[in-house]
Amino acid sequence: MIAPELHDELRGARVLITGGLGFLGSTLAHELVAAGTKVVLVDSLVPEYGGNRQNVADISDQVSVNISDVRDQHSLNELVREQDILFNLAGQTSHLDSMTDPYTDLEINCRAQLSILEACRHENPDIRIVFASTRQIYGRPQELPVNESHPIVPVDVNGINKTAGEWYHLLYGEVYGLHVSVLRLTNTYGPRMRVKDARQTFLGYWLRLAVEGRTIQVFGDGTQKRDFNYADDAARAFLLAALRDEARGRVYNLGSDEVVDLRELGELLVELNGAGELELVPFPPDRKAIDIGDFYADFSRIRAELGWEPRVPLRAGLERALDYYRTYGELYW
Amino acid sequence: MIAPELHDELRGARVLITGGLGFLGSTLAHELVAAGTKVVLVDSLVPEYGGNRQNVADISDQVSVNISDVRDQHSLNELVREQDILFNLAGQTSHLDSMTDPYTDLEINCRAQLSILEACRHENPDIRIVFASTRQIYGRPQELPVNESHPIVPVDVNGINKTAGEWYHLLYGEVYGLHVSVLRLTNTYGPRMRVKDARQTFLGYWLRLAVEGRTIQVFGDGTQKRDFNYADDAARAFLLAALRDEARGRVYNLGSDEVVDLRELGELLVELNGAGELELVPFPPDRKAIDIGDFYADFSRIRAELGWEPRVPLRAGLERALDYYRTYGELYW
Repeated sequence: MIAPELHDELRGARVLITGGLGFLGSTLAHELVAAGTKVVLVDSLVPEYGGNRQNVADISDQVSVNISDVRDQHSLNELVREQDILFNLAGQTSHLDSMTDPYTDLEINCRAQLSILEACRHENPDIRIVFASTRQIYGRPQELPVNESHPIVPVDVNGINKTAGEWYHLLYGEVYGLHVSVLRLTNTYGPRMRVKDARQTFLGYWLRLAVEGRTIQVFGDGTQKRDFNYADDAARAFLLAALRDEARGRVYNLGSDEVVDLRELGELLVELNGAGELELVPFPPDRKAIDIGDFYADFSRIRAELGWEPRVPLRAGLERALDYYRTYGELYW
Repeated sequence: MIAPELHDELRGARVLITGGLGFLGSTLAHELVAAGTKVVLVDSLVPEYGGNRQNVADISDQVSVNISDVRDQHSLNELVREQDILFNLAGQTSHLDSMTDPYTDLEINCRAQLSILEACRHENPDIRIVFASTRQIYGRPQELPVNESHPIVPVDVNGINKTAGEWYHLLYGEVYGLHVSVLRLTNTYGPRMRVKDARQTFLGYWLRLAVEGRTIQVFGDGTQKRDFNYADDAARAFLLAALRDEARGRVYNLGSDEVVDLRELGELLVELNGAGELELVPFPPDRKAIDIGDFYADFSRIRAELGWEPRVPLRAGLERALDYYRTYGELYW
């Protein structure tokens, strides 16, 4: 259970999740099913992205899965109708892919977002929308921890396009009165994420390498600091943002008070896993060009306004994630 | 002559201008021809935009006109080859159009910009690119005058997409080493602009209304402050940005020390024109939603680094513009 205290409020709601077969989408789906909501999951299942049918195998008869791409304007018009809440999670998340193929990133992170908002505006203006944005749009932190007023200085095409996608949401809230909230996620991890490769997150791939007993490569000297949220904690923030009137038109950082550097993180992972090892390697040039140095978020705004804070400590979260991939890993590699 | 002092440096250069039949593109073309450069003008001549063959009628045998759309990736790959300078001016500029048709705005102001940059990166990495950005990306000024460090808070889809377009340019400069400069233009006016309607600028339309002796409508109480650049001054900034090494990777505001409110501007226009009248009308709701209040720019950075400042006072510039449309207006209505 992610947020049993919210189940009464959620019961009976109709919820649409784009990227619904992905990491956070499916995490939300489990909780929403437990809370007695009616859930529709939209996912393209594009192989390079995070969607995986395995993620909802255990609740497949309790959710409605609609395979379609958010780039398909027509299906969205239909799908947003008669929904109470939209968790808008579909996105292209790979920074490197955005540099080699900026057009696809643009189609998904910009054009499709416009389609989704146009669909809501015309077909269902009362829907509550929570958009998954990212810490990546801040670029290289000018001060730490990074709060929501930090300048937006993205360092790659993905960051630029995600910024535009976020701003479309806020704009449609402002101009057309849509009920929109934005969560800027920090590194999020847990069961059901893409761990096949580093396309979605490096930590997902590290989890795989650890479970397989392989060597984890840390770029540079491993002193880059990061904060991490366990999937359940991030998912609870989405639920709160959808339910709370105060969240309307607001942008919130997620984050954690547990800040570790990548070397510590890797060592913790190897320790908890009881196998695998760590290796420091020089930054590949294409990664270095878009690296942001230390990052950790100030999440005091969402703590103050919505009462959100992480509940799962890093150590416990990593243990749960490792357990999951030890059991189900074959379905994710 | 816009910048005779730069002609020696420009002579023999090969210059490509996107939006080349438009207002600033054609203004630049005249100066470049006078300086002895080889000019290629790319323009789609989409009727709703600023391109107009009349703009280069007097130099049509001295420039090469290539009718194609910047959304056409293939023609761009070919066109950027063997050019020394790219003045990248093609854009969708209507704020209202961007709200009714956000996709077209996205195609031109984002996707096409990526195409242009990809073309430069692959086909001509040594080209010098000057990108026409806009003050509009700052949104409602948080302090005045607005300098380049002011937060970027666009208030319409056009502003969001222009921001992305600008950032792609800076990013490609940073990551791929392209020689890129960005000019954030304030209100620019003069001969050869779109005056048929208010799609490009309100002032263009006011010039038409004045010349036709019709009533100029000012939204609200007319106290919104603005600064204005005459076309020749803006064009000179483009030339300097292309020629000066210091401009590499830099963002510059254009602007003017002559700040007037819209009512004063309208009155000046009617006075200089000797006909027409002014009327204060309530803000139409769709305009009000994306209005930014007072705006004038701090342009001290470009003054200090490139030695640019406006040379044409507002009164003189408006007189020259009125003269032009009195003579050629029929070709622009």
